[in-house]
Amino acid sequence: MKVVFERQELVRFGHCDPAGIVFYPRYFEMLNALVEDWFTEGLGVDYAQLLGPRRIGMPSVRLLADFKRVSRMGDRLCQRIRITRLGRTSLALAIAFEGPDGLRVAFEQVLVCTSLETHRPTPFPDDLRAALERAAGDTT
Amino acid sequence: MKVVFERQELVRFGHCDPAGIVFYPRYFEMLNALVEDWFTEGLGVDYAQLLGPRRIGMPSVRLLADFKRVSRMGDRLCQRIRITRLGRTSLALAIAFEGPDGLRVAFEQVLVCTSLETHRPTPFPDDLRAALERAAGDTT
Amino acid sequence: MKVVFERQELVRFGHCDPAGIVFYPRYFEMLNALVEDWFTEGLGVDYAQLLGPRRIGMPSVRLLADFKRVSRMGDRLCQRIRITRLGRTSLALAIAFEGPDGLRVAFEQVLVCTSLETHRPTPFPDDLRAALERAAGDTT
Amino acid sequence: MKVVFERQELVRFGHCDPAGIVFYPRYFEMLNALVEDWFTEGLGVDYAQLLGPRRIGMPSVRLLADFKRVSRMGDRLCQRIRITRLGRTSLALAIAFEGPDGLRVAFEQVLVCTSLETHRPTPFPDDLRAALERAAGDTT
Repeated sequence: MKVVFERQELVRFGHCDPAGIVFYPRYFEMLNALVEDWFTEGLGVDYAQLLGPRRIGMPSVRLLADFKRVSRMGDRLCQRIRITRLGRTSLALAIAFEGPDGLRVAFEQVLVCTSLETHRPTPFPDDLRAALERAAGDTT
Repeated sequence: MKVVFERQELVRFGHCDPAGIVFYPRYFEMLNALVEDWFTEGLGVDYAQLLGPRRIGMPSVRLLADFKRVSRMGDRLCQRIRITRLGRTSLALAIAFEGPDGLRVAFEQVLVCTSLETHRPTPFPDDLRAALERAAGDTT
Repeated sequence: MKVVFERQELVRFGHCDPAGIVFYPRYFEMLNALVEDWFTEGLGVDYAQLLGPRRIGMPSVRLLADFKRVSRMGDRLCQRIRITRLGRTSLALAIAFEGPDGLRVAFEQVLVCTSLETHRPTPFPDDLRAALERAAGDTT
Repeated sequence: MKVVFERQELVRFGHCDPAGIVFYPRYFEMLNALVEDWFTEGLGVDYAQLLGPRRIGMPSVRLLADFKRVSRMGDRLCQRIRITRLGRTSLALAIAFEGPDGLRVAFEQVLVCTSLETHRPTPFPDDLRAALERAAGDTT
């Protein structure tokens, strides 16, 4: 599977706990921001428009995280998204946060496209579906 | 497996997102606070003492969350911890957050006991090990 | 001015930073939760109902915090709310977080009652106004 | 007073509350990250090094926020730092978050340089003092 989006993020003071390492709920905040930026910058489907005026949600239904190595304040994490499955209303991603010493966290995330009126699954809107298919290419 | 700790938590305004439902990183903050309270109140091993002066960490190495139903501001979640495996340096938990309509989130979490000097695994200290064994009873 | 609401809160691992003390944005999360509980438990006006179905918001327009002493994981903070001014659409509070060694943080907060449709100020609804007047008594 | 550091930040889904606007504790997370980046990128004094190996803290002792207009998911905030006073152990800043419609939040923040061993004030280290003086120029 190819990487469909990649960026770097700095581990900040506010991400870290008294043990001096990333407090794991902060990793999930990073993860959510990454997916947001992928939609807007990578897929060209503005996330704020999608969840705001268009009333389409993208909640997680399943999320697995394997914490492999600790991350400390000042570290730069390379964050990479891969698409592992693209369905009619759902999307499975494999996401890696890597440091210079190797993998820090491996995530598997299943997102579902929902109506924000009903919180029920709904097919991806056409522009998002087309962008996801282009991104996934022949790799899924 | 029996429930080893149980409490209720109110879903707050600050837990919720513009879709009006819990923003998933906030569930992990709730989860961490729950485990903290279990240690201090349930096991009788003060969590702040453990991670502070005693320099023993309990980081997660694996965390799985299945999000079954949405939670809204004002909901009361019943949170229950079960022990699924107790090793020499690690502990696997099954944790459920339930609402009146049934299961909201099911977590599987593996915690490892570490030295906060080295961030390497270390056996549970005797008092914690004894408390965990008592809690687990003959169920693991 | 008399205290209109008081409770205790435990400083948690997740509130603290690599310096081992409360990361100040977490104090504001505690503050918001405190005001929420005051409305629901102290004033008898359910905060989730107010901001949800009733579509009444209570945003801060001004917030001052004086950080007097550091707080560490495991500390118990006594949190006290006083009303300093009660207007037609706004409310000024003085809030103290105290530890055994004295004042930790002193907040002054001005909240405004707004319509969540327009985000414009609106008079307090009757039940909330009556509850606030009872709480403030002859002290304002 | 001149602006000593400026950048833009996107208002994210995770910053916003069920009212669809920024939850105010998230503004303080943004503020802390801004000051962090100013130190590292603007002043050339690596914040992670400062608070990590160098054991110098920069806690807030006073913080005032005036919330002027609401911010919504997808907004871009222009964030600007000005120095209002530079003392031997403390630093006062005026920070503005602006949207296209004008000022959203105005902060006044007093930071104190402390030893992370004692949490007591200590003079700014020489490199930080020199960088702050260069930044403040003849404006303070």
